[in-house]
Amino acid sequence: MMKIITPILLVNKNQVYRNISKMIEKAKKNHVRFRPHFKTHQSAVIGEWFKEFGVSSITVSSVKMAECFANAGWDDITIAFPVNILEIEKINNLAKKIDLNLLVESENVIRFLENELESEVKVWINIDVGYHRDGIKWDKWDKITRLARLIEDSKILVLKGILTHAGHSYKSRTKVEIVQVHIDSISKMETIQMYLTEKGFFNIEISVGDTPTVSIVDEFSSVDEIRPGNFVFYDLKQVQISSCSENEIAIRFACPIVAKYEDRNEVLIDGGAIHFSKDYILDDNQRKIYGYITKEIDGKWESKIEDSYVTSISQEHGTIKLNVEYFNEVNIGDVLLIIPVHACLATNLMGKLYLTTGQEIEAKCR
Amino acid sequence: MMKIITPILLVNKNQVYRNISKMIEKAKKNHVRFRPHFKTHQSAVIGEWFKEFGVSSITVSSVKMAECFANAGWDDITIAFPVNILEIEKINNLAKKIDLNLLVESENVIRFLENELESEVKVWINIDVGYHRDGIKWDKWDKITRLARLIEDSKILVLKGILTHAGHSYKSRTKVEIVQVHIDSISKMETIQMYLTEKGFFNIEISVGDTPTVSIVDEFSSVDEIRPGNFVFYDLKQVQISSCSENEIAIRFACPIVAKYEDRNEVLIDGGAIHFSKDYILDDNQRKIYGYITKEIDGKWESKIEDSYVTSISQEHGTIKLNVEYFNEVNIGDVLLIIPVHACLATNLMGKLYLTTGQEIEAKCR
Repeated sequence: MMKIITPILLVNKNQVYRNISKMIEKAKKNHVRFRPHFKTHQSAVIGEWFKEFGVSSITVSSVKMAECFANAGWDDITIAFPVNILEIEKINNLAKKIDLNLLVESENVIRFLENELESEVKVWINIDVGYHRDGIKWDKWDKITRLARLIEDSKILVLKGILTHAGHSYKSRTKVEIVQVHIDSISKMETIQMYLTEKGFFNIEISVGDTPTVSIVDEFSSVDEIRPGNFVFYDLKQVQISSCSENEIAIRFACPIVAKYEDRNEVLIDGGAIHFSKDYILDDNQRKIYGYITKEIDGKWESKIEDSYVTSISQEHGTIKLNVEYFNEVNIGDVLLIIPVHACLATNLMGKLYLTTGQEIEAKCR
Repeated sequence: MMKIITPILLVNKNQVYRNISKMIEKAKKNHVRFRPHFKTHQSAVIGEWFKEFGVSSITVSSVKMAECFANAGWDDITIAFPVNILEIEKINNLAKKIDLNLLVESENVIRFLENELESEVKVWINIDVGYHRDGIKWDKWDKITRLARLIEDSKILVLKGILTHAGHSYKSRTKVEIVQVHIDSISKMETIQMYLTEKGFFNIEISVGDTPTVSIVDEFSSVDEIRPGNFVFYDLKQVQISSCSENEIAIRFACPIVAKYEDRNEVLIDGGAIHFSKDYILDDNQRKIYGYITKEIDGKWESKIEDSYVTSISQEHGTIKLNVEYFNEVNIGDVLLIIPVHACLATNLMGKLYLTTGQEIEAKCR
């Protein structure tokens, strides 16, 4: 392994390729457009890995991220965040250069765009199928139709379809629950599509996207586009949801041990909330877990070590409980490998990743 | 107010000056050295504000942060994090240039430093008075004495004293609880000091530092140094602990509203975990609160608005419940003011702050 001095985030390129490949196969088999969400890796370099697979359309979560990936050569981008009208100047600049897709959910914003936009943009109506974070409630057909009409009447907006993020799939703990969320979401989206068709709107596409459903479900017959993001790395949250297995997680933190506590079988690492974020999972005993511990043997990341986990974190400190055997094996100055809880927030905090060969990969495209 | 387009972190310079001034008065009255922790603001500019008050010694939490503030002209720095021996090269470079104070808690690390250090450094023995994160348990007098002996015998290490972070004060909810933590911590530190004096170690200083105790306690007769950090900004966690009042909090997030949901009196803001961090407080009803909402009237930040708070956050999205009156008052495109839960993590994520006049302040000294 490369020389590690302070906390770094390692990425296994082969596993990333396997994760991308698997998702692309699924998209091809179902004849749906693959528009991966790049907020997870925020890296122009990893973007290039997607290009090797022929990917040409992407999703991002902010105008700034869209600008960054546009500069990296991407020319078909969806900003999957309700339009912030205060950013109109930047939106206009982007729309001049690339094929821009925006998310709308109110008449006021559509009217604003109609008045202020200088180039054609495609718009998706944002639908809430049960997550209740953003979007129009799926059964408000009248409102959805009014919005569709406003967009169709516009000279500068092109109605592309309806889009949802079924983020309530993150509450799932089994594959069956994930599939139930998916079936429910899709049937709601199909209902809207049928309703709009009856009202004279044709070619309304359906775009869905959360990593759990897209990872588990095999059949996407009525869907036109999928937008998963987290799958590129996966993490412990996704394992808990049942979206993936632990060995599909493509990243690990490497953190030096700075102290050992014999009386409690704990070690202190250089590594805390400014590296991992404060996201945690609850284990079966309702304990907060900020990461599991693993080893590298013969260049391969092993399964998590039993009874060993990050028990608490503060700004830079991480406290790790180890099983007696591993505790006795490690020393101050050794580097521990940690499986992250939340890949997106960890990558956002770190701003770069390292290949196991030591090569640095920028991840600040935001 | 300045023109705000995307989430920013505002700082009230006058309130920061008041917070610094109050703490300095307390230090002066007690004849203790004031060595503020700069991890909260991570800003060379705000460092200059401290210099105006005559502050000359500081605390940081990493070698990198020490390098940054050394470059900004600070020449007396304590790295309040157990020495990471893998960073010896950088430590040596720093020790050549500045008055460096390090934290040790094991014989192996002391021996390592004795062998590898090239310039004299001062060391503090790190004591655990009850937080159980780092340090030697306060009642392991034999171990503490052995370490003191090793340091005294060293040609390159200078024994400065004993240091603790009574982080368990963060569990307090009343001033009385904070004072209890303080009295208990100090009596433990005094016991060690007496024990070491009996063993022939003189001039052993006592350094304490958590913001809650230092904010509330007035009398620090047996203490030589205080190292609070968070007090410069304060936040909702500190209000909950009882360290400060809400009007002493010197920072606010400003985030645009991008959607309104009439059926649930909620708005969606551009602002989420990549801005605020995932830290929360639990209110009296055990609800997770990721921030309270406030208004600016006549250039003054008002008290938090009743029944209004950030209910949930994802990577970039923030969902905010507003009381009916304020909900009806605001529109898409308006900017909401949010009182942060955790100043240190928020500042670390944002990397800059803005004065209310619009002036940008770098906060990336790490």
